[in-house]
Amino acid sequence: MRHLLLVAAATALVAAAPPPVKYATPPSVIAESRPGEWQAIPADDLMLIDLKNGQRIVVQLAPLFAPVHVANIRALARSGYWQGAAIYRVQDNYVAQWGNNDSDKPLPASVVKKPPAEYHRALRGLRITPLGSSDSYAPAVGYTAGWPVAYDAKAGTANLPHCYASVGVGRDLSPDTGMGGELYAAIGHGPRSLDRVIAVVGRVVSGIEHMASLPRGTEALGFYKERTSDVPIANVRLASMLPEAERPRFEYLKDKSASFARWLRVKKNRQDEFYIRPAGGVDLCNALVPVRPAK
Amino acid sequence: MRHLLLVAAATALVAAAPPPVKYATPPSVIAESRPGEWQAIPADDLMLIDLKNGQRIVVQLAPLFAPVHVANIRALARSGYWQGAAIYRVQDNYVAQWGNNDSDKPLPASVVKKPPAEYHRALRGLRITPLGSSDSYAPAVGYTAGWPVAYDAKAGTANLPHCYASVGVGRDLSPDTGMGGELYAAIGHGPRSLDRVIAVVGRVVSGIEHMASLPRGTEALGFYKERTSDVPIANVRLASMLPEAERPRFEYLKDKSASFARWLRVKKNRQDEFYIRPAGGVDLCNALVPVRPAK
Repeated sequence: MRHLLLVAAATALVAAAPPPVKYATPPSVIAESRPGEWQAIPADDLMLIDLKNGQRIVVQLAPLFAPVHVANIRALARSGYWQGAAIYRVQDNYVAQWGNNDSDKPLPASVVKKPPAEYHRALRGLRITPLGSSDSYAPAVGYTAGWPVAYDAKAGTANLPHCYASVGVGRDLSPDTGMGGELYAAIGHGPRSLDRVIAVVGRVVSGIEHMASLPRGTEALGFYKERTSDVPIANVRLASMLPEAERPRFEYLKDKSASFARWLRVKKNRQDEFYIRPAGGVDLCNALVPVRPAK
Repeated sequence: MRHLLLVAAATALVAAAPPPVKYATPPSVIAESRPGEWQAIPADDLMLIDLKNGQRIVVQLAPLFAPVHVANIRALARSGYWQGAAIYRVQDNYVAQWGNNDSDKPLPASVVKKPPAEYHRALRGLRITPLGSSDSYAPAVGYTAGWPVAYDAKAGTANLPHCYASVGVGRDLSPDTGMGGELYAAIGHGPRSLDRVIAVVGRVVSGIEHMASLPRGTEALGFYKERTSDVPIANVRLASMLPEAERPRFEYLKDKSASFARWLRVKKNRQDEFYIRPAGGVDLCNALVPVRPAK
């Protein structure tokens, strides 16, 4: 028995090397896409979390869904709020969480201390590309402006789903919504029961594996027992705070593009020498929008 | 901002300490269940993977779904086939894989080298408890004999779904089904597109975090580049190979029990000081059968 040929699964980041394919696969569709089908992510929407160990995690912020929380997060990043912060909680099949935890670090003046409940937004104004598969948590799901989205046409609401690598705002009990200082990323099966219960503010587009592979905390809810177990954060900055030449750049496949439609068809119906039985459908969290480093 | 109060999510293993609750939560339902609602797992169905670093991963085998592959795996464990084996592949948001990889280690005589395609089984003979939520990969999903199950009443078939901690058999291209020497566990969002494409032979009931927190491999498909990165396995045994007093014991909540029905209702409709908006549904992979160490 040699190497298992399990084909690479949906990840937030898609390798773009063109393989010699006979059947269309998600990577082959990406490789054949046109440059014009990709949308650059603004530098102000990219948050860079640099760990003291040299690893970098890049989060794309979602002002379209949580504008007040995202404005807070940008202000915190610009003020250096997370210098000396840490990842202090890692709960298996759930979340990794970071921030200043028990400290009472002063906040920049512009930070809104009690933001509104940005757990969902108006569906109106969003152009939706439907997924066309069923969902256990929302009447319908699809994509909009590069984001996966769950929506309810009757209620007129839309929300970002808790999928792998989604980033949300830690909070205390309702009506507290969290001001954005404590954030978490999902590192297991998408905890969708948190949808519309917490403000989702973005997604990790690079480096989620640095959080997902951390030792799990042994205390209740995965908190590390000793502060010496915490994973220190050197700095958190927006890409827009860096000189142009030093900014990492990312782009996503437009959900209105022909390649996206083709990619989604292939995701629903894997069929090649390995995938002998097409599923005919796909879970939203298993068909996350392709994001890649931009040239 | 103090500790985020995110409530513990679905994990393969449920802590049984009774909390002082006001609202029913999944842990409170488990804590209030009766001992008779739990079913002991046979010692011959428990496979113990002892890593050289002292960590133990416990897999429950599923002879109900993949009898020939499970018979192979038991024969391999009894023969010491995995002494000197290793975890040699860890792909983020996908799988951790172990076995003897490139070696040509001799097999016990009883091992079936080309097992049948146990990717699904007959629905007939299974007593199903429906989940009652929609699914993107199968006409219906539910539970049977302590397992989550996807099924198709029209086709008359049932299969184990690829959820977090599911264990499957590595194989080469079809019609090869893999003989069971190379196994993987899912460590990210349930890769359900593998359903009915690969033989699922069980689930990790303890220690999945030891696999999920491993460094990701840097080669294609998450293979480790250097053999020195491999995570050595000391031994793989069935619990039935140990003296009675040394056997770990596990039990699952019977899916026909009143507590299971209540647990499922609560999983679909979290409602307490934190969960302000019940989802009304749950994804099968977010409602995995509670399994716990038995006294």
